[in-house]
Amino acid sequence: MALDQPMFDLRELQLAARNHGVPLEALRYPITPVGLHYLLIHFDIPAVDPGSWRLDVGGAVGFPLSLSLDDVRARPQVSVPVTMECAGNGRAGVSPHVVSQPWVLEAVGTAEWTGIPLRGLLEDAGLADEAVEVVFEGLDSGIDGGVEQHYARSLTVGQAMADDVLLAHTVNGDPLPPQHGFPLRLVVPGWYGMTSVKWLRSITAVREPFAGYQQAQAYRMRRSEDDDGEPVSLIAPRALMIPPGIPDFLTRARLVDRGPVRIEGRAWSGRGDIVGVEFSADGGGSWAEAELGESAGRHAWRGWSYLWEPAATGACELCCAARDAAGNRQPPHASWNVGGYANNAVQRVAVAVR
Amino acid sequence: MALDQPMFDLRELQLAARNHGVPLEALRYPITPVGLHYLLIHFDIPAVDPGSWRLDVGGAVGFPLSLSLDDVRARPQVSVPVTMECAGNGRAGVSPHVVSQPWVLEAVGTAEWTGIPLRGLLEDAGLADEAVEVVFEGLDSGIDGGVEQHYARSLTVGQAMADDVLLAHTVNGDPLPPQHGFPLRLVVPGWYGMTSVKWLRSITAVREPFAGYQQAQAYRMRRSEDDDGEPVSLIAPRALMIPPGIPDFLTRARLVDRGPVRIEGRAWSGRGDIVGVEFSADGGGSWAEAELGESAGRHAWRGWSYLWEPAATGACELCCAARDAAGNRQPPHASWNVGGYANNAVQRVAVAVR
Repeated sequence: MALDQPMFDLRELQLAARNHGVPLEALRYPITPVGLHYLLIHFDIPAVDPGSWRLDVGGAVGFPLSLSLDDVRARPQVSVPVTMECAGNGRAGVSPHVVSQPWVLEAVGTAEWTGIPLRGLLEDAGLADEAVEVVFEGLDSGIDGGVEQHYARSLTVGQAMADDVLLAHTVNGDPLPPQHGFPLRLVVPGWYGMTSVKWLRSITAVREPFAGYQQAQAYRMRRSEDDDGEPVSLIAPRALMIPPGIPDFLTRARLVDRGPVRIEGRAWSGRGDIVGVEFSADGGGSWAEAELGESAGRHAWRGWSYLWEPAATGACELCCAARDAAGNRQPPHASWNVGGYANNAVQRVAVAVR
Repeated sequence: MALDQPMFDLRELQLAARNHGVPLEALRYPITPVGLHYLLIHFDIPAVDPGSWRLDVGGAVGFPLSLSLDDVRARPQVSVPVTMECAGNGRAGVSPHVVSQPWVLEAVGTAEWTGIPLRGLLEDAGLADEAVEVVFEGLDSGIDGGVEQHYARSLTVGQAMADDVLLAHTVNGDPLPPQHGFPLRLVVPGWYGMTSVKWLRSITAVREPFAGYQQAQAYRMRRSEDDDGEPVSLIAPRALMIPPGIPDFLTRARLVDRGPVRIEGRAWSGRGDIVGVEFSADGGGSWAEAELGESAGRHAWRGWSYLWEPAATGACELCCAARDAAGNRQPPHASWNVGGYANNAVQRVAVAVR
């Protein structure tokens, strides 16, 4: 390895061994098979008895609810394909090194989630006028940053009442498997995955902004330890390619046969529709527009492809960069923040053409 | 981290991010949900069109066969629960450090595989008397140890004709997902997972022992680079516990409340039935027999439990060790070989009792 490559300690390895990423060749599937979708499990996967499980909806509401899984399934159902990405995706590439879940680029997936719209449930519960946020708490618990907690996050009332925010009991047509939040999870399209609380046990409307650890300390774009930072929220644009050719087992380096090579991938953004993907075969020195393909839905990634004709044999660095309708383009290199969040620098794939 | 802890490079991290391990709390399930079963994918997951896919059975046989997936499904079917473990499980714990897929302890899973007995297929193909081995080749290809190859492994004729060796198209009642070898894979109960070739494209009876890379170079217990070593074969005994209490996110260290704690886990061996599991709360200084529970099948792991009553608050190291009917017991510390294979040293879980 080059001397400037980062090294990872046993804490990081343990997290990488637990938390699954999508192998990049699986970007070929518009809907990611469930066992290939990325997973970030903060604590342990809880054991849940679906018969005794309840979702409590309370706090600043007129009509507190306690729903069984059958109650949830009896309400009107919707299905929404959603691309979800971990806020820490790309963390292994930031410098100085940030010690946490060390994602390279694989913390993403697209699934079709089926469940009930959150807005209708909050309306039925009679959300009070003075409610400012809605807190979602999971059954999973542990210690993070020295604080013992159940995993919990909040949305403002406006965010919670948005279209297509749902409580999902089904993924890709099957009941949620344990690792995806069985029996019920929140799904917030367009937001990084920390927002989509798994193993839901309660939804609580509150009159003051939620100050829980995962909201007030973690998941903030902090420039230093003293900086409060802005909250991490919508997914920044990213394009990924399926690395072409064949891999070396140990290094994952790619060997590509000369001749036209169809490069394919997916691109997504939570901040605006994808309007372009560019491809470079010289490490970002020159760029060409890729062809955009179909999207699996308005909250799902969009396919793209580029017919690359290698000019010669030898080493080159392939890159891709997405642009969204809000005017965002992926940067060439990672920016840094304390948590190593939202690093959407362009993907770089070293290949040897033969 | 302690100064004697290993560090891992980007090659190892990339492999850890691709290849999924089972989160240890998922040992609670007698049959591992498919998305939690460990995966070791040497190269890329191949894209397979099930309509044009064929399994070719040839070489030293009287009646070469070319089977479609429908042909496979039309034959008599069997279902077998099998505990499968990667030969590299525990590699992160060997010293000196071995650079490859850096499993901690999570490269295991138990699935119910459904398919056709291999023996019947080989009989129908008219295996020749002079055949000595049967070679299984996958559709996945890449470079390993400098050698370009399709992944391939062999069994002796005796091993291939054994009971319960099957060609599986279904796992836990569903068609194989891409990552588990769609549309058809070999499953060899009792053997480390490298034997159970995925994405099968051919089965070839040969008159000389197979000398392919994964058989003759990799997966051998070599004491030095010059040592040919014995082949890695049957799974050594291992017990794992579900780490009790709650975890710290970053370190995965456990905090356990005082009072009786039911420790639960699974134990397995490919070398003989599990006849005992021992538990220690003092790092292996003293041991007590755990209770053995049910097995999910003759090739599947066996549950075990132990009611631990912590003597005091503070730090302690929990261990478990399995024994099998062939007289094997897990060693207290890892032994070393060039490939870092078959390290079945006892699990050690640091906990703080409060």
